[in-house]
Amino acid sequence: MRMVDLIQHKRDGGRLTREQLYFIVQGFTRGDIPDYQMSAFAMAVFFRGMDEEEIADLTMAMASSGDVVSLAAIRGTKVDKHSTGGVGDKTSLIVVPLVAAAGVPVAKMSGRGLGHTGGTVDKLESIRGFRIELPNDQFVRNVNENKMALVGQSGNLAPADKKLYALRDVTATVNSIPLIASSIMSKKIASGADAIVLDVKVGSGAFMKSLEEARELASTMVSIGKSLKRRTIAVLSDMNEPLGTEVGNALEVAEAIETLRGGGDARLRDICLTLAAYMAIAGGAYPDFAAARQGLEELLGAGRALETFRKFVEAQGGDPAIVDDPALLPQAAYRLAVRAEHEGFVQAIDAEAVGVAAMLLGAGRAKKEDAIDYAVGVSLRKKVGDRVSFGETIAVLHSNRENNRDITERLLAAYTIGSDQPEPVPVVYDVVE
Amino acid sequence: MRMVDLIQHKRDGGRLTREQLYFIVQGFTRGDIPDYQMSAFAMAVFFRGMDEEEIADLTMAMASSGDVVSLAAIRGTKVDKHSTGGVGDKTSLIVVPLVAAAGVPVAKMSGRGLGHTGGTVDKLESIRGFRIELPNDQFVRNVNENKMALVGQSGNLAPADKKLYALRDVTATVNSIPLIASSIMSKKIASGADAIVLDVKVGSGAFMKSLEEARELASTMVSIGKSLKRRTIAVLSDMNEPLGTEVGNALEVAEAIETLRGGGDARLRDICLTLAAYMAIAGGAYPDFAAARQGLEELLGAGRALETFRKFVEAQGGDPAIVDDPALLPQAAYRLAVRAEHEGFVQAIDAEAVGVAAMLLGAGRAKKEDAIDYAVGVSLRKKVGDRVSFGETIAVLHSNRENNRDITERLLAAYTIGSDQPEPVPVVYDVVE
Repeated sequence: MRMVDLIQHKRDGGRLTREQLYFIVQGFTRGDIPDYQMSAFAMAVFFRGMDEEEIADLTMAMASSGDVVSLAAIRGTKVDKHSTGGVGDKTSLIVVPLVAAAGVPVAKMSGRGLGHTGGTVDKLESIRGFRIELPNDQFVRNVNENKMALVGQSGNLAPADKKLYALRDVTATVNSIPLIASSIMSKKIASGADAIVLDVKVGSGAFMKSLEEARELASTMVSIGKSLKRRTIAVLSDMNEPLGTEVGNALEVAEAIETLRGGGDARLRDICLTLAAYMAIAGGAYPDFAAARQGLEELLGAGRALETFRKFVEAQGGDPAIVDDPALLPQAAYRLAVRAEHEGFVQAIDAEAVGVAAMLLGAGRAKKEDAIDYAVGVSLRKKVGDRVSFGETIAVLHSNRENNRDITERLLAAYTIGSDQPEPVPVVYDVVE
Repeated sequence: MRMVDLIQHKRDGGRLTREQLYFIVQGFTRGDIPDYQMSAFAMAVFFRGMDEEEIADLTMAMASSGDVVSLAAIRGTKVDKHSTGGVGDKTSLIVVPLVAAAGVPVAKMSGRGLGHTGGTVDKLESIRGFRIELPNDQFVRNVNENKMALVGQSGNLAPADKKLYALRDVTATVNSIPLIASSIMSKKIASGADAIVLDVKVGSGAFMKSLEEARELASTMVSIGKSLKRRTIAVLSDMNEPLGTEVGNALEVAEAIETLRGGGDARLRDICLTLAAYMAIAGGAYPDFAAARQGLEELLGAGRALETFRKFVEAQGGDPAIVDDPALLPQAAYRLAVRAEHEGFVQAIDAEAVGVAAMLLGAGRAKKEDAIDYAVGVSLRKKVGDRVSFGETIAVLHSNRENNRDITERLLAAYTIGSDQPEPVPVVYDVVE
């Protein structure tokens, strides 16, 4: 088998067999297939696509290219979740303890963020003392005892995907549904999940700009799950403005705690309850969506999810006092109000622009080596649909910089203010299963 | 400017400016743009194509990526030729002395062959003493004195093309008309040609299998020539069977001498006269095709082309006696007749299969480092349209191997023999200018 022939076969619209896809993925992981062949192959896939069977085979080949985690020592159906990413997305911090509180074990592995804001791992590390690396036996023990644990991804989880993603990023081959879907699903499979709930974000602040694209990605991932015998459900949710009000690591932990306490932003609460409901159903805790939703709302109201979160933080070495007093989380030196220069209703908030503003404050990484400032970020005081009068505070910057003029300007530019109140947009568009 | 953005722009069907194409070619030549980006770019070009202006800019960027030969010291219009390659193609050995005999200077640079049979350089090196490397002043002096010289390509001629071609070869991106056309033309431009005659081969033994593809390639190259102010004419010629009767280095030199003597295969003679006519017209020796063709036939008949060839061989250190006695060329130890196992008319001869047979005998290179055996090859005694009786010799192997059974079988399989005489196929299909 020669890689050049396989590239040509795909280039000419042919389909690849399981054996051929394993040859490609294993050869690439070992370094026998050079980057220049793999990037040409990725571009051929961009143009020609892959059928469902090819995508499932590619996913499995990547999932088995490195360590495959066994969660057999954990009782029950292990349910994982994944979000395609968006600005202000702290749903894992809320959904995981909520599902765990319903008795469904969640043994979660998360990545660090590269981009506007930190990933779940970075957010948790804003809690003093929190340890994101656990020995495997303690990881398992914590899940069995408290129904949840959350650790950083093993360095050797789906290395083929890691290597391919880095290559796609610099060869304009990121934006291919078969490659995106297999990348996401390979990591979930390698992490040992029995069932997977996917949060596919749609809108100006998401990777998928249109509902059609998002639906295609969702269906592709659900079909991979079906092929590989992992129950998979995808929720299509809105990312036309940042999710919730806080953007920045410690700020988002505080917002998650507020939501776990039963308060917080209504749209954030809604998407969290929806995701948690599908996870809890997949884990066997409830028979259907209505029962799950009601049961989870009760758990939230009774403070059970907050309690699970507190135990989780403590079990991983973090200071549990932050749960009762989020002011103990890292605080920025300066808080600056960004004031409206127009009056009217907020029509739109450019999520990406808010993300970039937070990153420039130090909340995210432009390069893998960059350090994160956990304290900084942006609090959005006005969201889409809100009324704003002239000079009113629309956002607050949490900054450790003395001069924040550029950030203020970016935030003002991120808001579109107009005279009519816009029609409300649902937070959950659809569910694909 | 970032390469990833340029790849994406081409991927999405955009066009690239001259500045962008120079950035790509120069960066790639210097090694600033890695192979894995260039191969993804080549695949995007494969799918999206390029317009005429882009192709001309890419050609010029590659032509100027290394040494650019100046032929200013040679009087007159310098005309070059290029063939897209085929089995038994020894036209340069005939056409160049013929055009030179008509008074048009030909300062030719040729490559070595990689594939079934040697290139023009390899064929000439089968002549004892022949030197393919000449100091530049002697190259120029020889052209001014004898109207022709032929040397190996400078190592630094269009290095971007050399590097890109090697990459395309292993990434299934060879078969793209913009990339093929710019590759060929960049070397001709860098070699200092004022005018270019292209022999675009069509058929089962050629890279272009259909007349439509060949015509597209021809038009693209003619359009590049027009953009870059080099008069360019393309002849579309048949390669459904090997050209002439001899395949192998010394064998082809002998066949060229036979044709220069006024004899030889009629189809070989015909394509040579056609190519030479367009070159001689471009060089200003004749006003039109009819006059050129007649003038060149007269020169051939009078032995003037053979005389030019003899002087050329002598001027480059080769033994001129081979011109009068081709038996002085290297001879193989064994000659074996391949005898027909059917009777009827030759319907087709698979040129590629004949080429592979010659290569296996040692006439060509499978890898760049392979040595060539100048003496070996195949003489085709029967060509398409010829009548064959059972047991009659259809071909003769010139071999230095004792056991040639596999080669004999390949040759028998290369011949298709059937009961009806096939319709004759023209050797020249069309001319694009």
